Amino acid sequence: MSAVRVHNFSISIDGFATGEGQAADAPFGHAGERLHEWMFATRSWQGEGGSIGADNAFAERHGPGIGAEIMGAGKFGPPNWQDDPDYRGAWGPNPPFHAPVFVLTHRPRPSIEMEGGTTFHFLDASPAEALDRAREAAAGQDVRLGGGPTVVRDFVNADLVDHLHVVQVPLLLGRGVRLWDGLEALEEKYDIEAVSTPSRVTHLTFTRRR
Amino acid sequence: MSAVRVHNFSISIDGFATGEGQAADAPFGHAGERLHEWMFATRSWQGEGGSIGADNAFAERHGPGIGAEIMGAGKFGPPNWQDDPDYRGAWGPNPPFHAPVFVLTHRPRPSIEMEGGTTFHFLDASPAEALDRAREAAAGQDVRLGGGPTVVRDFVNADLVDHLHVVQVPLLLGRGVRLWDGLEALEEKYDIEAVSTPSRVTHLTFTRRR
Ligand SMILES: NC(=O)c1ccc[n+]([C@@H]2O[C@H](COP(=O)([O-])OP(=O)(O)OC[C@H]3O[C@@H](n4cnc5c(N)ncnc54)[C@H](OP(=O)(O)O)[C@@H]3O)[C@@H](O)[C@H]2O)c1
Ligand SMILES: NC(=O)c1ccc[n+]([C@@H]2O[C@H](COP(=O)([O-])OP(=O)(O)OC[C@H]3O[C@@H](n4cnc5c(N)ncnc54)[C@H](OP(=O)(O)O)[C@@H]3O)[C@@H](O)[C@H]2O)c1
Repeated sequence: MSAVRVHNFSISIDGFATGEGQAADAPFGHAGERLHEWMFATRSWQGEGGSIGADNAFAERHGPGIGAEIMGAGKFGPPNWQDDPDYRGAWGPNPPFHAPVFVLTHRPRPSIEMEGGTTFHFLDASPAEALDRAREAAAGQDVRLGGGPTVVRDFVNADLVDHLHVVQVPLLLGRGVRLWDGLEALEEKYDIEAVSTPSRVTHLTFTRRR
Repeated sequence: MSAVRVHNFSISIDGFATGEGQAADAPFGHAGERLHEWMFATRSWQGEGGSIGADNAFAERHGPGIGAEIMGAGKFGPPNWQDDPDYRGAWGPNPPFHAPVFVLTHRPRPSIEMEGGTTFHFLDASPAEALDRAREAAAGQDVRLGGGPTVVRDFVNADLVDHLHVVQVPLLLGRGVRLWDGLEALEEKYDIEAVSTPSRVTHLTFTRRR
């Protein structure tokens, strides 16, 4: 069966995956771009000139073998994007997904076809139902769970995530949305590895035990 | 000036320094001993036969150069130990401090002299006042801040901590007392390093910028 994978999911040392005050011009609120600077520095993100060490090895795993993405309404756009019937997402005309993307929202709308192979589909559905839809679209390839934190937590709690890659960044955000709430005893279901890299981030990988 | 240092302070991935349900027979509540297994495995803790790698190098820093400790009421004993006038702490007749220990509590009592050089003094005082007292007792040596999380947070917020060593253990406790609450932007005051070791813990060191 195709796997469900989370990649490059970045949090502060105090566990926040996004800051407070999310808006169109501040998709991570007061966190700004600081949660992802480690990733922007890699070749996988910036091409020629980017780093090719451990951070890049992790970052590169984002794309290959993925046939569809699932994301939450909070990753698709700023609060209340649903009020604008013409809204096409925070990702520009050619979004970096290049695959069907299933956006979970309690206010679904018709699908939107973008450039570069991304089509946004909107679903009001349980995690398991959404995954069935995404698996079908992925046609045997894996499904990436793109976040945000609320959706990652819900899928982990529904026991649907096979591989979780979290990157802990040396920042204390203090406020925002936490990743880890309500995930007690995750170590009983997953093998956990940790590796710190010279950029000062720590990659945590959770691999579901069979 | 003598420094204020926190050592071997162990937390779960979700940031809890102790579990729920602290009691005389469960000083870390439902966490049990899991937060400190990495430390028990080191030579610094168990002597001959213990590991002598990176975990031990960190663990060993606990003692040398320390002239006094400050701890909170929650580290001294289980909830409501203050109701027992004969209580002598959770640390046995020969506590592992071998120095004056200043216990912060809103219900102070006369000092208690233990075996092995430990004397417990009880203070109802601000962090700065407590530190003055401990520095005096330390006679030029450093002061160790022993925890728990509430006291560590209070001293960091009062800008009194020079060096903070936190050990992140691959567990999700889900409930208990969090270390990181209310410490937004700590990275602006401290240089932060991270190093993961083969025992799967990650040592985080915070060194105050001058
Ligand atoms: N740190 C990272 O690596 C990372 C990665 C991705 C995103 N982010 C950030 O995370 C933030 C968004 O995260 P978030 O936790 O606030 O939100 P989110 O997880 O993106 O989305 C949660 C929202 O999706 C909708 N939803 C979720 N499950 C649903 C279901 N089963 N059925 C119907 N609707 C459902 C609900 O929205 P409605 O009720 O409004 O429809 C819910 O409030 C953004 O700031 C984004 O930039 C960070
Ligand atoms: N993870 C680790 O490495 C580590 C290290 C040490 C301890 N611990 C654990 O942490 C737990 C205790 O932590 P905690 O956060 O609950 O408590 P704590 O930090 O040990 O103590 C907090 C208590 O100390 C007293 N206090 C603090 N500041 C004071 C002040 N300025 N003046 C007067 N009294 C003051 C208050 O108690 P009263 O009002 O009751 O007097 C307060 O509730 C225990 O489970 C312990 O085993 C863990």
